[in-house]
Amino acid sequence: MKPFVTRLWEAVDQKNCSAMVGLDPRPEHFPEPFLSQARGGAYEAANAMRTYHRELLDVLAPKIPIIKPQAAFFEALGPVGFEAMCDSIEAAKERGILVLLDAKRGDIGSTSTAYAQAYFSGEACPAADALTINPYLGEDACQPFLDVASEHGAGIFVLVKTSNPGAGLFQDHGDPPLADRVAQAVHRWGKSQLNPSSWSSVGAVVGATRPDELAHFRKLMPHAPILLPGFGFQGGSAEGLQAAFDDAGHGAIVNSSRGILWAHEREDLAHLPSWQDRVDAAVDEMLLALAPVQKSGASAQ
Amino acid sequence: MKPFVTRLWEAVDQKNCSAMVGLDPRPEHFPEPFLSQARGGAYEAANAMRTYHRELLDVLAPKIPIIKPQAAFFEALGPVGFEAMCDSIEAAKERGILVLLDAKRGDIGSTSTAYAQAYFSGEACPAADALTINPYLGEDACQPFLDVASEHGAGIFVLVKTSNPGAGLFQDHGDPPLADRVAQAVHRWGKSQLNPSSWSSVGAVVGATRPDELAHFRKLMPHAPILLPGFGFQGGSAEGLQAAFDDAGHGAIVNSSRGILWAHEREDLAHLPSWQDRVDAAVDEMLLALAPVQKSGASAQ
Repeated sequence: MKPFVTRLWEAVDQKNCSAMVGLDPRPEHFPEPFLSQARGGAYEAANAMRTYHRELLDVLAPKIPIIKPQAAFFEALGPVGFEAMCDSIEAAKERGILVLLDAKRGDIGSTSTAYAQAYFSGEACPAADALTINPYLGEDACQPFLDVASEHGAGIFVLVKTSNPGAGLFQDHGDPPLADRVAQAVHRWGKSQLNPSSWSSVGAVVGATRPDELAHFRKLMPHAPILLPGFGFQGGSAEGLQAAFDDAGHGAIVNSSRGILWAHEREDLAHLPSWQDRVDAAVDEMLLALAPVQKSGASAQ
Repeated sequence: MKPFVTRLWEAVDQKNCSAMVGLDPRPEHFPEPFLSQARGGAYEAANAMRTYHRELLDVLAPKIPIIKPQAAFFEALGPVGFEAMCDSIEAAKERGILVLLDAKRGDIGSTSTAYAQAYFSGEACPAADALTINPYLGEDACQPFLDVASEHGAGIFVLVKTSNPGAGLFQDHGDPPLADRVAQAVHRWGKSQLNPSSWSSVGAVVGATRPDELAHFRKLMPHAPILLPGFGFQGGSAEGLQAAFDDAGHGAIVNSSRGILWAHEREDLAHLPSWQDRVDAAVDEMLLALAPVQKSGASAQ
């Protein structure tokens, strides 16, 4: 199998789209009829989730190259929720959408290996294409994730700088700040396995709040695909994202979760007949906003 | 419900034991007949795991106050593994053993809340008594875990210093080292809710390698229960653990995972007829080694 980053940019090129949709399934925000079907308990909610996600992925598949299921919301429903997560991963793969599982796992030694095998081996759950990991435990703790990912042609996104207001408490600690040290490690871990275009399958999560901050991290990690969280309801716009992208429109994927998933609740889209139409309209809005960083958008400038 | 830390020290007193057993279920290390039963696939392995853990917990219940299931090894078996994890949590509770789920979760805002509810609400999986979390994302990311734990009388163990060889790469970064900053935060988060004996339900994982290092972290976090990992196969002994304990024999719990779970593979215990006898013997060894930090041991000194 081609390395993850090669498959990622191919999918981005094919759909001319660097947007990622986050699946944060909260049953209380499902559109009807899934909202009603989800009532009753975890079993009902998980069943509604499976059907809802399959229909949602039908809407997303023509335009969106990669989705990001958030493990927490599946785990909140217990074993049946975990089963729904596996089902949604499978459904995305069936529709030609890549899957970055946002689980932010991190442990040591053979425990890290167990996590990596859980999500990359495909033995007990359909394999994700990439996984987010937390670097706090250090290099020997991250290495098993990198090894198992490499073995399966999968990718890793290491948390470098997160997008929450309090991210700096620990990530800005020290001089240089901790996040810079993590970025340097990400660069070191990824540079030994570059694809023919000099991209690595070891990426980074960078919730930069300013264009110069994003440019700084891009400089520290010239080969790393960057996951830019927080487009949409969490604030943020395509302005200032340019630093993460190269002239080919590669370099980053921009996530929106609630901005897409909750489109059916938007009053200004209420004239559209179905929740699918509203999701599709919200996707189109995002693609328009991201046009400046796409290859076609960039060349049009 | 009493706060977690109160229940923890009551259980420690009742069994006169500060040892914790980590459940790291690797089917290839199950004793027979579970080793054979686990062959075939995830379904068989998960079924064998459930029965094995129930019998194991029967052996541990009279002596061990708290167990630490490692989520990774359950997740490695997919949805049926997740179900086995819930079953093992339930089995421990039925036997009067506290459960610290070692999942090292960490995320932001409502996602952290979803993780915390997954493991503390008892809605979709039997509630754990405590959970390990990763602090990298900062205070606003940890707060939802603290809030939901407090609501359910549960505990949190924040990763401060881990026991792997490469832990220092990020945890020692800066001056003071990052781990100190995290320890100060753990102290701050926990000090507002102390039990009548001035202990907090916000604890810390401290893989200290030297007695003075442990004393240092105890000083930074005077109210925090400390989880000391790595007793047994990972090296470490009761020497030098004293700094974590007070005169009442409270202050820390000392984990052993493989040292207990793999006792049936030990040649020097091969004369004992059953795997249960060997586990029980390994537990007795550990209790003897820990006697110096127990209340009765301390008073005997």
